Amino acid sequence: MNESQVSEFLASLPPKPGAVVRSGDFPVGVIGLDHGHIGGMCAGLRAAGADIVLVYDRDTKKAEDFAAKYGAKVAQSAEEVLGHPDIRMIASAIVPWERGSLGIAAMRHGKDYFVDKTPFTQFEQIAEARQVCRETGRRYFCYFSERLHTESGILAGYLIDTGVIGRVLAVEGFGPHRIGAPEQRPDWFWKKRESGGILCDIGSHQIEQFLYYTGAKSARVDHARIANYAHPDYPEFEDFGDAALTADNGATNYYRVDWFTTPGLSNWGDGRTLILGTGGHIELRKFVNLASNGSAPNGEMVLWADEDGEHSVCARGLVGAPFFGEMILDCLEHTERAMTQAHIFMAAELCVACEAQAQVVSGNGILPLYHPTV
Amino acid sequence: MNESQVSEFLASLPPKPGAVVRSGDFPVGVIGLDHGHIGGMCAGLRAAGADIVLVYDRDTKKAEDFAAKYGAKVAQSAEEVLGHPDIRMIASAIVPWERGSLGIAAMRHGKDYFVDKTPFTQFEQIAEARQVCRETGRRYFCYFSERLHTESGILAGYLIDTGVIGRVLAVEGFGPHRIGAPEQRPDWFWKKRESGGILCDIGSHQIEQFLYYTGAKSARVDHARIANYAHPDYPEFEDFGDAALTADNGATNYYRVDWFTTPGLSNWGDGRTLILGTGGHIELRKFVNLASNGSAPNGEMVLWADEDGEHSVCARGLVGAPFFGEMILDCLEHTERAMTQAHIFMAAELCVACEAQAQVVSGNGILPLYHPTV
Repeated sequence: MNESQVSEFLASLPPKPGAVVRSGDFPVGVIGLDHGHIGGMCAGLRAAGADIVLVYDRDTKKAEDFAAKYGAKVAQSAEEVLGHPDIRMIASAIVPWERGSLGIAAMRHGKDYFVDKTPFTQFEQIAEARQVCRETGRRYFCYFSERLHTESGILAGYLIDTGVIGRVLAVEGFGPHRIGAPEQRPDWFWKKRESGGILCDIGSHQIEQFLYYTGAKSARVDHARIANYAHPDYPEFEDFGDAALTADNGATNYYRVDWFTTPGLSNWGDGRTLILGTGGHIELRKFVNLASNGSAPNGEMVLWADEDGEHSVCARGLVGAPFFGEMILDCLEHTERAMTQAHIFMAAELCVACEAQAQVVSGNGILPLYHPTV
Repeated sequence: MNESQVSEFLASLPPKPGAVVRSGDFPVGVIGLDHGHIGGMCAGLRAAGADIVLVYDRDTKKAEDFAAKYGAKVAQSAEEVLGHPDIRMIASAIVPWERGSLGIAAMRHGKDYFVDKTPFTQFEQIAEARQVCRETGRRYFCYFSERLHTESGILAGYLIDTGVIGRVLAVEGFGPHRIGAPEQRPDWFWKKRESGGILCDIGSHQIEQFLYYTGAKSARVDHARIANYAHPDYPEFEDFGDAALTADNGATNYYRVDWFTTPGLSNWGDGRTLILGTGGHIELRKFVNLASNGSAPNGEMVLWADEDGEHSVCARGLVGAPFFGEMILDCLEHTERAMTQAHIFMAAELCVACEAQAQVVSGNGILPLYHPTV
């Protein structure tokens, strides 16, 4: 693209999405406030026209504060929300290992489901959810926020669709996170069975992006590693993980996730996505533009090189988050605008597979030495 | 580091290296001009005080042009260079598969050896070179230019040594290259046996950097992939490769190399190195600062985050290339200032191992499908 073609591309973007339904058309009930992502999920739903009407959490105070913020009522039990006749969708950021069974219950109650990532922690849950989706016709959506709720992530998809970088060959994703004060983290955060492990939890974003940007329907996990380098007080915790996947269409992926963001970084993590095509490459600097010191926007940056040159666009304010409205319409009209159900389950299954296949790297360097072959 | 500590760090850097010997003290003979890297190798040698005195290449015209540029004489055979009594070192950028045997011959003639990367293409050559090093006491050096001859690469080492990013846990390297007009490439470039393959050839830079920045003595290859996505006219050619390694000290590596740099990029490749530590992270933008449009220096950038903030330094002109003088002193004084011989052979062996273990990814997407487990 030359500069005028970049301008044309930006001018041709879909209009920023607004509400797709009127108030009252899409009442949402919330069960489980364990992860803060529920805020982003509900903000997205409301911007698309949904109403948050009822909330349940084991922590009543938390439920009350949430209800006050969203103008919702507090339910006395999860069953009250599941059984409410007006509610179309259940949204949840419950502890990861409870997400699958809650989604299955929601679908069996005739509701669509929208859950924080990671959508599942066990293969068996995925198998059952696939079956219940088929039986009930309800949907199981997941909040893969690092693509769906970043404008750089959305703009990258539009850019790939123009063909300007050719066929996508490889996607590398980096998802570093800040851990903050350990005592501020809930107990489940440190337990592998409950959190799903690092590759399953924060790795799920990376796998979804790989499948999406490469247009893959399926992939295999070639190799995965997990480690606990620096958190000996939490022996089940994984502070580092990475994996390599190969897609059915021949595209490759590598991703690394970790909990080592330093307090000095200006945001919670220097998340990046590198996309290599036959005709160019794209880099996303999602949350921070490292050490740019105000000389460039701090995050939501889409940079790319194509046959005509190098380009940089800040996506902030350009494209919004079309996912939420598309998801609501998919629920109402039985379409697959936002994403296919198969895509969601494949991303879910691969992140569980990464965790299941992962080699444990010893943080103390007591690996068996490589034996020189010569 | 706060800003004054950054200034102190920069002020404390070793002085830029100059000549370590006087003219006549370190005569170098050159055999094999097949790769253009011989220019960088000889420039570095001369800046450190060496003289390029004699050159042989199968292509006489090429040898004559080279000799004229460096004030050297043209030899009639490789043997003439190897047997010249005044010559201390043989430098070579001969076709990769001939590098090992030439180095062994050089050492057997009592000369130290300095060869372009990749230093070897076969395990057997490494085994014999190890043996001949021990027998003769001569050295087998390699031009891992992406660290040794970039100031960002050198500065990153000094920065890690300060401890500011803590223990180095992971290094990810990206070495994209521009292929240019295929007809300008020599025949050997397309032949796997002669070039060594992409992981062995341009991957060797990446492995050396991984071992160096992590302080590892050894590593294992966990997984490697190669592909020919877009060059069907050259069936042996690999235009894409990547690999994951784990070091003896528990640090991890991923690297990707490819030949897909678009003509629109302002340099031959957007080479990056990402270094994750327990206390921060470093990014090197070695050859281009993608789409910076003059708002930042284009390449040789060292960016990092530590507990005090985010920092960015252009390394150009700050540290020079200490490797060359250190290598000359190592040869003269039988030290290991520049790098240990074990490090060079380990990097060499691992890049051959990557190539040997690599899975072939079908560029046409005819991979066996991942079979859902559920």
